[in-house]
Formats: sequence, structure tokens, C-alpha cells
Amino acid sequence: MLTDIEIAQRATLKPIKDIAQSLGLSENDWEPYGHTKAKLSDQIVEKLSDKPDGKIVLVTSINPTPAGEGKSTVTVGLGQALNKTGKKAVIALREPSLGPVMGIKGGAAGGGYSQVLPMEDINLHFTGDLHAITSANNALAAMIDNHIHRGNELNIDPRRIEWKRVMDMNDRALRQVVVGLGGPLRGVPREDGFNITVASEIMAILCLANNLNDLKERISNIVVGYTYEEEPVTVKDLKVEGALTLLLKDAIKPNLVQTTENTPAIIHGGPFANIAHGCNSLIATKTAAKLGDYVVTEAGFGADLGAEKFLDIKTRAGNFEPDAVVIVATVRALKMHGGVAKDNLTEENVEALEVGMENLAKHIETIETFGLPYVVAINKFPTDTDAETRLIQSWCESRGIEVALTEVWANGGNGGIELAEKVIQKTQSTDHNFQRLYELDDSIENKIRKIAQKVYGADDIELSAKAKKQITLYDEQGWSNMPVCMAKTQYSLSDDPSLVGRPKGFSISIREIRPSVGAGFLVVLTGDVMTMPGLPKKPAALNMDVSDDGKAVGLF
Amino acid sequence: MLTDIEIAQRATLKPIKDIAQSLGLSENDWEPYGHTKAKLSDQIVEKLSDKPDGKIVLVTSINPTPAGEGKSTVTVGLGQALNKTGKKAVIALREPSLGPVMGIKGGAAGGGYSQVLPMEDINLHFTGDLHAITSANNALAAMIDNHIHRGNELNIDPRRIEWKRVMDMNDRALRQVVVGLGGPLRGVPREDGFNITVASEIMAILCLANNLNDLKERISNIVVGYTYEEEPVTVKDLKVEGALTLLLKDAIKPNLVQTTENTPAIIHGGPFANIAHGCNSLIATKTAAKLGDYVVTEAGFGADLGAEKFLDIKTRAGNFEPDAVVIVATVRALKMHGGVAKDNLTEENVEALEVGMENLAKHIETIETFGLPYVVAINKFPTDTDAETRLIQSWCESRGIEVALTEVWANGGNGGIELAEKVIQKTQSTDHNFQRLYELDDSIENKIRKIAQKVYGADDIELSAKAKKQITLYDEQGWSNMPVCMAKTQYSLSDDPSLVGRPKGFSISIREIRPSVGAGFLVVLTGDVMTMPGLPKKPAALNMDVSDDGKAVGLF
Repeated sequence: MLTDIEIAQRATLKPIKDIAQSLGLSENDWEPYGHTKAKLSDQIVEKLSDKPDGKIVLVTSINPTPAGEGKSTVTVGLGQALNKTGKKAVIALREPSLGPVMGIKGGAAGGGYSQVLPMEDINLHFTGDLHAITSANNALAAMIDNHIHRGNELNIDPRRIEWKRVMDMNDRALRQVVVGLGGPLRGVPREDGFNITVASEIMAILCLANNLNDLKERISNIVVGYTYEEEPVTVKDLKVEGALTLLLKDAIKPNLVQTTENTPAIIHGGPFANIAHGCNSLIATKTAAKLGDYVVTEAGFGADLGAEKFLDIKTRAGNFEPDAVVIVATVRALKMHGGVAKDNLTEENVEALEVGMENLAKHIETIETFGLPYVVAINKFPTDTDAETRLIQSWCESRGIEVALTEVWANGGNGGIELAEKVIQKTQSTDHNFQRLYELDDSIENKIRKIAQKVYGADDIELSAKAKKQITLYDEQGWSNMPVCMAKTQYSLSDDPSLVGRPKGFSISIREIRPSVGAGFLVVLTGDVMTMPGLPKKPAALNMDVSDDGKAVGLF
Repeated sequence: MLTDIEIAQRATLKPIKDIAQSLGLSENDWEPYGHTKAKLSDQIVEKLSDKPDGKIVLVTSINPTPAGEGKSTVTVGLGQALNKTGKKAVIALREPSLGPVMGIKGGAAGGGYSQVLPMEDINLHFTGDLHAITSANNALAAMIDNHIHRGNELNIDPRRIEWKRVMDMNDRALRQVVVGLGGPLRGVPREDGFNITVASEIMAILCLANNLNDLKERISNIVVGYTYEEEPVTVKDLKVEGALTLLLKDAIKPNLVQTTENTPAIIHGGPFANIAHGCNSLIATKTAAKLGDYVVTEAGFGADLGAEKFLDIKTRAGNFEPDAVVIVATVRALKMHGGVAKDNLTEENVEALEVGMENLAKHIETIETFGLPYVVAINKFPTDTDAETRLIQSWCESRGIEVALTEVWANGGNGGIELAEKVIQKTQSTDHNFQRLYELDDSIENKIRKIAQKVYGADDIELSAKAKKQITLYDEQGWSNMPVCMAKTQYSLSDDPSLVGRPKGFSISIREIRPSVGAGFLVVLTGDVMTMPGLPKKPAALNMDVSDDGKAVGLF
């Protein structure tokens, strides 16, 4: 069996010009980055404003497990399958972060015969968007410390700076640092820390901005810290919103590539799915909707995190709604939710699977709560037995739930035809009654409570003393009217990662609430949230190399 | 009078395809990055190995002053002028660093009608080379700290780690930091610091490597620190040379752009001119020599630093020699060397100019010591008086030195025709007897002494106790056979920046010697060397913005 990178390197890519032409784009609408990547204009949505939007299909999943669900693979495979059924489909995905690629993942661009290509470029520097975000983030950090060093006219309290530097790397030694040491020529000493680039608020902003002006406006509103009088200090106060926007003027343009079967894919933006909303950029989704009859897009982690944020945050920023949802599940992952250890997943275990189905059931309820039509996609692995896949199918069918077995890793688009047909049907159905989970003018506490109860199945929430104080402060600042962005473990519906399946009788502990005023949401932290990952004992980088003919080795 | 960015934005750029075709390049030799930038293959030199090289012209200058010399502008203007005289000229320049652009400079791509374009892109992210170097540098740093955190099999002494993290930003608060704070989940605490990206040894390596294999070999040899037994630890020991090379596989490809007059320019690599050798990449220079009849290239700072390193380090790595040298001087800068304050430069002052000529005289002697033919270029400013320019001309003529008055800022190539003609003549002359300043098997001390005496005009050198100890250590390690890379103030021939003109009766104090075993040289530090600049009170970033139609504002 070929590996992902072998399949990728054997695929026949079309010139990106052909892909752009197939979307009806003219020469002025895009710029080449090499022969198989392009940056699209950020003006396409406006230019095609009279054209009706294509149908938007959101791909989500059960709670992830170490067994893997293959949500990106299904997203790519579904796009390819839609194309095979004669629809014009465009895929919209997030850009991978270099840190995890060098660390554990080794790559993130779908898999098998459902990949986006060129996978080497996409997994490494791609078109430089993450680097531009790193630069803008760190230019702001340098301006803050320079402002304090040069007299601190704004009276910024160095103990209350919220803006951290970032690096697109897994580097735990940077989680907590002291900067400005070494005397008066080396700045003002203070505690600081680095986040991974995808956790930067600038990444979230880039992904929620409707256009360049909106981007600048949101950047202006970023709260970088507080004065000694505890008043917020913004980017606008520092007068660098223009420079930061300038650094992002190309990064805001969506990137066009293609899949293993030459289906167009727009890969753009990749905010962290815990501290931010975990979806590709709004501009990418909207551009795809202008260019395709169908957009297939995904949101990070399970439906409790990514889909909820897609539906409550991203669709609000962009004023749109999806036409259908796909919920991806695997036999392997559901067995883990039923209590099977990772090492025993290859053995048939119908009983455990049946228990694990409860996790899927909860996510189905969530999507129903949002009033959206959906299809369950079983992403088939070679070790799945017939009895196991039949169990999921009959479970769904007995409840009137559409379900499709897909084999897109092994068979590309042909492995997702049934799913594509059911999705098309759903997008045309009339049982579409989209409603978001909360109103913006609900209190902060009630917004959190609604999510905890309706999406996680919690009894209630518990606010820490700190969180309570913050809510009072944010009410005073006029920040309570924003959506909330939950930072919770992805492994469980609860805030305890060890509780797989469908936990009951728990409450969600709210530790802290951080304002992302530029992005336009309040981050609600439950438990410890990692904003800078670390490297494993044997990082994936150890296997990487370049062959004599300049080809990437060791990505997967 | 139009500003640089206004001139740049009004210039008519040709599609980069046309520029590539004019160089005889086929479609496989380059990849587009947008419509006006391209990455050239890193195989062109090998592919055209049978083709004779074009003439190589090195542009250097007197010691820089705050008055500005316009070395890049003359380099671009000379290339344009050569083209006007019917020669096929290719310009080879360094890539600007984002830090100084956001800080003081606001841009670095020539000036007036002698600029490289698109200046906005070149000054911002360009084709991402500096970002790739940042990533490779910081991936290595993360691997080092991770290695220690995960058991430290190599027995690395955290107090003796020489490898620093980098950022392409002017950020003084990062000069001296403590990382790894916060307990066992956050790594091992140690003192650390950040350099600006262009000071990374990886940048120096990229600029001295002949090809991708050479790059990997040099990266393997980087010494990242020492064990508790004080034995060197290399990248090879950490087994990440493959991953780091992979991160640089596109960055090693030279970038093709054009000038305001559509002359081809290859802009690639930009090592710091103090802690490294301050020249564009060897691959760029050699590629330009294969594609043009004439290559015009520059080296950082004055002839005491950039040209010496070009001639003793870069030409050794690439096994080539230049055919002629241009020494750039301005009336303004020479008056400063004659003691005039910056505020009084607009007043005619022939006496001060005559005193300042001594600085030019020393650099002329240096180029003569190297046995190379040369032309003095006077880069004319509007405030220069006839008496002043005549003084320089007659000074040169009375000594049989070729001199040319150039006005390339205001008039583009037409302002450099005389210079071009004299340069052509010099490259055809037979008084060419290139000899480097020292032999590789000279002792470290003697190499330094020869440079100090013959290039700086010092009486002798003084080694600190630390430097003496280091020389003994490096001899033991077998590192003494490498060229030396002097880190000295650029403002004076001596190591005291306040001594303008031609100081006499001084000696050079050698504080410390650092091995750049990967790059292949020993960095010799005289005085304090800044490897991370800071921002001024009013950074250039404050004036930057993007216009409503997406154009850059505030670069210059």
C-alpha cells in the first residue's frame, strides 16, 4: 500500500491556470505561486455579488480519538465525489501549521486518494500566510515593548500585557519566558510567553474578516493589555493598524490548489480550534460559494467545538448559513468511545461499538438543535467488519437518519458517491430551519450555559471567582454582546478528556474568560488550554529529508 | 519630486515571463510568484556549466555615514546603464530584512529611477526566503530544548548552548531572555536570546552553499553548543539536517525580479554584514553570471567590511573572482568624513571634503592590495556643488584613477553611462592580479592581523584573554583553517565608530571569536556587536498603511 506522500507525488496535477479557468476566473482574479498554487483576489465575492451562492456543506465529526476520524479526508473525498456526480464542487479547508507537522502529525492535507496537493508545499511554507501572520503578531509585540521602553506615553502596565509573541513551531520552552533582561539597552523586563501562530488573535481575525477594510478595523480593536488604571489599550492607541494590515495584504487572499482528482480546493487560514474558532477563512468559504455549486468545508474537532463555533461565530460574521451538515464517524473511534483501548481496535467488538454510538447520537442531536439537515458518513477502515458497519447503518436507518458508507481514502471520489448523492438530496430538502444556539444579547453566562447544556449535555456551568469578576469587567467595557468561543478538551463532550462516549451528570467549570475584541468573541477557558504545543520524544522531523532531485521525504 | 514608492508604483513592469525569456530561460527553469516575481531553479549553474561566465562587477563603498552613499542605487543604476550600452547585464542584490523596514529604513531596494521592483513585495515578505530561514533556525532551537527536556541523551550543557532563536523583527526585548520557566511541563530553564533572522548562521550558510547538497552538509556541521565535557554538539548529532534542509528547499532558489527600467535583477539572501559576510547568495551571483554578460553585485557596508569578506570568504566558497570593482562615494559622506556635522551638509565645504578624501583613499588602496581593477563612482546629490565634485574628479585624475560622476537616482541608467563604459573597459583590462589577503593555513591570529593592518590601517591587534583561549580551543577542534569574518563597526576603519576619515595609530581589540562551522568561517568580534536591532521612538511602521485599492503606503 502506498503512503500518502507516495500517492501525492504520483498524482498528475493540472496547471493551476487550468483549475482557475475551470472556475471561470479571469487572469486578473488570481496570481500564480509556482505552477500548482495560486492566490485568488480578495475581491471575488464582491465582484460576483450578483451571482447566487452555491450550497454550503459543513463537515464535522464525533469527538476525536487517537484512532483518527479522517474528517479532512472525507471533506476532500466528498468534494471529489460531488464532481463525479456532475456538480461543480469547491473544497474549503484550513492551512496546516508547521509546528505540528514537524512534531507529531508530519502533515495535514487529507489522506490517500483524497488529498489536497501539492501536499509538500501545503504542509511546509505554502504561500506564506502563516509567516505573514507571525510577522504581524510579532511586529505588534515589538511595538508594545518599544512603546514602554521609549517612555510609555500610554501608561501601559507591563504586568498586564495580554498580547503574546508567536512562533509557528512546537516549542514548549517558550511557553513561559522572561524578556527584556540585561539592562537598559535591552528593554523593560517582564513575564511573557509565546503562542503557536495559529493561536494568534490575528489568525482568528484574518479568518473572520469580510475584506481588507474589515481586517484593519478588527485589528484596530485588538486589546493588547491594560494601563496602570486598568483601562484597555488597543492597537489603535499604538497607531500600528495600518502597518499590521499592510503585512497581511497578501495573506488575506485565499489560496487555490487542487485535490488528487483535480477538484479545486481553497485552503486558507487555520485558527486554533480551542482558543479560536477552528474554521478556514470566511473569505475562502464565501469565494468558494461564488465559484462552485457546492462548497464542502470543515470545522475543527467534533461538532461540540468546531461545528458549534462555525454555526454561532463564523456564520454570524459572514451572515450566511450552511445547507447541510455531514457528521463523520469511524468504527474505530466509536469503539474507543465504547471503552476499547487503542491497541485492541483491530478486533471486532460490536458491543463496545453499540455503547460508543452514544457519542454520535449526541452530535446528531446537536445538529438537529441547530435545525440543519445532515448525513452521517462512516469513514471505512480496512479493519472494520461487516457486522460493525452494519450496526451503525441499521442504528441510523431505524431512526430515519441518512447514513453513507464511504471509502474515499482508498478510492477517492468513487468511494463517496453515495454520500454525495445523499448530501445533494439534503441540501434540496425543505426541512431547513437554521437557528443559532443563543442570542448575542444573552448575558455572557447564559450564552455559555446554553452551549454547555444543549451541546455538551452538561447539567450546568460553574464559574470561577476570576471568571465572575471578568464578566463584570467585560459588561462594563461593553464587550458582552459578542459570541463566546469555547476552549474545551476535544476528546470529551465534558471538560474531562478521559470521559469518552456520552458523559452525563457533569458540569462545566469555567476557569477564565479572555476577550478577543478584534476577532469579535470572548474565549471561555475550561481547564488548562495549551496555546503552544510541545514536541514528542521522537519528532516527525527526524524522518524528514530532501531527495537528490529536490523532493520532500518523510511527510505524511 | 516623486518619492521612491511613487516612482516604483508608476513604473511599468514587464511580466516576469518576459524577463525570464530575455535571459534565455525555459519554462522549467523558473516558477512564477505572482506576475512580477519568480523563483529560478537552483540547477541553472550546473545546467549551463559549459557556458562561460559573464564578467562580475563588485560594488563597494567608503565607510557609510548617516548621509547615505546609495550603494544599492548605484548597483541598480550601473546594471541599467550597462544594458543601455548594449550589454546584457544582470543585477544581484541582497534581500531586505523586515525588521529594519518596520524600524528605521522603511525599505531597501535602491532608490529613485534605479530601484528593484515590485519594491513593496521585496521589502515585505517577498518570496518567503527569510521566513523559511526563521523556521529552520527555530525548528533547530526547539529540537535542542526538546532534546534536553526529553532526557538529554547527548549530554548537552544548557549553559553552553550557542544556538539562538531568531525573529525577522527589530525587537530589543528579546536580546536577553530566560526560557523554559513554569515547571516541568515547560522545558528546562536557561538563559537565551534572539537574533534577527539575517544574523542566523543558516542565512550565512544559504548564501555560501553551492547547491542543496552543500547546504545540507553545511547545516550538518553547525555547532549548536557543547556537552558538559565541553565537546561540540552538531546538527548531525541531533539528526535534523534533513528536516532543516527540507524547510529550505525553496529558499535556496534565487528570486528573479526587474528594475525600474526592466533590467533583470536576482535578489537572494541577505546575511548580516557584521556577524556574517553581508553578500547576496553565491547561487544568485553564479546564476547571474551564467545568464548575463555582466553581473553587478554589491557587498554590505564599506570596502573594509563587505568587499574584504566578498573577496576572502565568498569568492573562496564559490571558487571565482570578480573582474572589476566600483567604489561608491558621495560628496556628502566624504564631507562627514572630513568632520562636517550632518546638519551642515548642504553648505559647500571643499576643505572638509579634501580631508574626507582620505577615507576614499584608504579603500582604494585596499582594492589595489587585492589586485583588482576599479572605478570610483561619485553618486551625485542635488546639493553637491561643482567645486566639490570637481575636487573628487581631479583628485582621482591626478593619480590616474578612473572616476565617473553618476546620477542614477534621478536619471536611471542614463545617469550611469560614463560609469558603465569605464567599468566595461576595466573588465577588459589586463592589470588583473587577484590575490586574497591571507592563506587559509595562516594562524587565526595572523589572518586577523593581516586584515587589521592591510585593510583597516591598524598598527596591530590586541587579543582579549577570552579570544586567546578560544584560539587554542579552535586549533584543537581543527577549526583554524577557515576564513575569518570580521565583526567591526561599519562607521570607521577602526573599531571606534567615532573615528571618521582615515584614523591612524590605533589597534583593533579582539573581544571574542565565535565559530560558524556550518557557514565555514570564524566570526571575530571587535567591540559590542548588535545581532538584534531595536526600534526607534517613532518606527517607520507608524506611517505604513494599505490604500483602499490594496496598494502599500508608507514604504520608501
